[in-house]
Amino acid sequence: MSGQTKSETLATRRRLLGRNLSVAYKDPLKIVRGSMQYLYDEQGNQYLDAYNNVAHVGHCHPRVVRAAQEQMALLNTNTRYLNDLINEYASRLTATLPESLSVCFFVNSGSEANELALRLARAHTKARDLIVLDHAYHGNTTTLIDISPYKHKGPGGSGPPSWVHSVPQPDVYRGQYRDGQAGERYAEHVIEVIEELGDDGLCGFIAESLPSVGGQIVLPKDYLGLVYKAVRGAGGVCIADEVQTGYGRIGTHFWGFESYGVIPDIVVLGKPIGNGHPIGAVVTTAEIAGSFANGMEFFSTFGGNNVSCAIGSEVLATVLDEHLQTHARQIGDHMLSRLNELKSRYKIIGDVRGSGMFLGVELVRDRETLEPATDEADTIVNLMRGEGILLGTDGPFHNVLKIRPPMPFDQNDAERLIAVLDRILKTNI
Amino acid sequence: MSGQTKSETLATRRRLLGRNLSVAYKDPLKIVRGSMQYLYDEQGNQYLDAYNNVAHVGHCHPRVVRAAQEQMALLNTNTRYLNDLINEYASRLTATLPESLSVCFFVNSGSEANELALRLARAHTKARDLIVLDHAYHGNTTTLIDISPYKHKGPGGSGPPSWVHSVPQPDVYRGQYRDGQAGERYAEHVIEVIEELGDDGLCGFIAESLPSVGGQIVLPKDYLGLVYKAVRGAGGVCIADEVQTGYGRIGTHFWGFESYGVIPDIVVLGKPIGNGHPIGAVVTTAEIAGSFANGMEFFSTFGGNNVSCAIGSEVLATVLDEHLQTHARQIGDHMLSRLNELKSRYKIIGDVRGSGMFLGVELVRDRETLEPATDEADTIVNLMRGEGILLGTDGPFHNVLKIRPPMPFDQNDAERLIAVLDRILKTNI
Repeated sequence: MSGQTKSETLATRRRLLGRNLSVAYKDPLKIVRGSMQYLYDEQGNQYLDAYNNVAHVGHCHPRVVRAAQEQMALLNTNTRYLNDLINEYASRLTATLPESLSVCFFVNSGSEANELALRLARAHTKARDLIVLDHAYHGNTTTLIDISPYKHKGPGGSGPPSWVHSVPQPDVYRGQYRDGQAGERYAEHVIEVIEELGDDGLCGFIAESLPSVGGQIVLPKDYLGLVYKAVRGAGGVCIADEVQTGYGRIGTHFWGFESYGVIPDIVVLGKPIGNGHPIGAVVTTAEIAGSFANGMEFFSTFGGNNVSCAIGSEVLATVLDEHLQTHARQIGDHMLSRLNELKSRYKIIGDVRGSGMFLGVELVRDRETLEPATDEADTIVNLMRGEGILLGTDGPFHNVLKIRPPMPFDQNDAERLIAVLDRILKTNI
Repeated sequence: MSGQTKSETLATRRRLLGRNLSVAYKDPLKIVRGSMQYLYDEQGNQYLDAYNNVAHVGHCHPRVVRAAQEQMALLNTNTRYLNDLINEYASRLTATLPESLSVCFFVNSGSEANELALRLARAHTKARDLIVLDHAYHGNTTTLIDISPYKHKGPGGSGPPSWVHSVPQPDVYRGQYRDGQAGERYAEHVIEVIEELGDDGLCGFIAESLPSVGGQIVLPKDYLGLVYKAVRGAGGVCIADEVQTGYGRIGTHFWGFESYGVIPDIVVLGKPIGNGHPIGAVVTTAEIAGSFANGMEFFSTFGGNNVSCAIGSEVLATVLDEHLQTHARQIGDHMLSRLNELKSRYKIIGDVRGSGMFLGVELVRDRETLEPATDEADTIVNLMRGEGILLGTDGPFHNVLKIRPPMPFDQNDAERLIAVLDRILKTNI
């Protein structure tokens, strides 16, 4: 099967795998090798990966590969036995977080981590109702689809259950409030839900610190502070989904929530922390972890296994040793200025936003009506792919170019991306 | 931290990890190395692993380690790109299954796989109500605790939701029916639930092919055939949870369900298929997969990644190339005869059951009343650990010794286990 052409590979895949797992790009890629910010197809062509935040420190980063290879040959078993690796990883991880976030749980994906976060919140509050942001995506299980408007309001979805309350995504470009008071006004919607719930019991509030599927959104600075205060006042807990934004990606801070000056009660980690290896984690307070230890064991067969912990530790050490947060800030600031320069020349660019290596370029047909330039975004992404640069789209209208590369993405890569985007905007759009 | 003594390691773990993740044995083990059916502690002591079915082809099996190491250095990215490895794995996997089970989904754990199985079943039947076996365990998410009586009826549990209907576990040793008609009688309970549901809509039935947490139970031969017929007659689908029993473990067949002559609509795979690496999979019919493709994407960030597929393929190839199913049957038959011989000498052994390398030894204080010898089972397991042999207990009363070793477990290991168990039963119980 390894000698199959791309079209044979596609046909085999269609036969053997579920059809609702779609491939990227109109002309799909057959990728066979990866190295740092680059991917290579079966013919040896190189692609600049500008949107895969999972390979956080770079595809096949040698240091992470070595740590994994060594541990794999030594031991890979579960957490029913004592082992130093899980303690080392938990110790390194909590050292990057506020002091109150001190107890770790390890699982195998962001979905498993969000599932667990919800169980922790419910065990602690003994309540069920959850406030979520519109357009949010938190994972692929039944309960996580329930709390993900992106899914349950989308194709094939059947709406939210009664315990899920979605509030407007605090989008200051396209949302209903866009001025200096936007943070306060969006927070009012949360307060309204809380008031309507009355004594019915609020479990909590969950949000990505910078909503990604929602369109690479930066929240108004004061929003989370106001929301957290109201939620806690009603006995709820505050969950920060950092699956897309943690580990220095936003440049200014190590964690997304830090950029708003808040401290969550539960932090959910996934994607980047394993650099591609299946790891998810939840970090919470001693008090919430205590409520969860109510007699029911929590055991994950693979979660926290020796190989996962060796990899997790090494990824984190690499982020710190290579100063990737500072790098993200430098490259991100440069990208923002270059993208804003493109915005001044191309009317289709309605908004440039983000922080560090978490950037969004929102395309519109009209800067007044904000009519989404969805087809154009799709065209651009496919043309960029033709030029060897991999981008994606996001947002409710799929009109936001998502730039979220592996962190080694450098100045040359940035220049190349901008130059190609400039040329495509000039010639094809 | 790697220089910590065992008690320091335990203290660090207590500080950094959730308390409801308990360690095995009264005197916990600090395990630092694994090789095939053996584990080694920090002082170099060897332990015979007689119950970890996750390390299916053996801890750190060189062939699997090599495949993982090579792929890890080459590429580890997601399923949005074409790649031969996922097709090869899906092709090898479906080749071991009945022809109707032809479409694969890859995730990262048995929990994720059971979550997905339930989504598939619901999308296909458009119904919600599920029939489950009492004492069953299917995973650690909110919905899976809902369908796991072992959890929701146990400590910290809050009972089943209205859509979950549990039926008696078909246990012919301790259950309410024990004679030749037991299969039929247990199946009657399923039929009763279906009749009570009436037009309310049955989604399906889920059971482990040989319930493990339930006490290493072998179902009556005709049970699943009768149940599947009734469930399908009511429009439901039949899910076989093979997380504990697949891949030749039961010796007589490659899959647990095959031993009853049935073909499920959805098969759930976990633990052994990654030999410790986080992999879960669901295999279903083209028809059910078609119903699931209703417009909602199903994407798992890590599921089906290149490294997971390389490992999954190699584990499966190793099972076949090393004839581990035949080996399991030979060693299992020998173990059964030796355990039955012990049963003839020790009254505390009430029942010896299982198949291949999936065995249970149920301990009772009285062979008439079947009073569970729970404390004695715990004592035996801890004494065995002191003798360098790792066993666990299972069953609703934790009085069933669970023998479920890595498959390379051999004749010498079997003799040693039996001899030590014999000595402990003679001297200490």
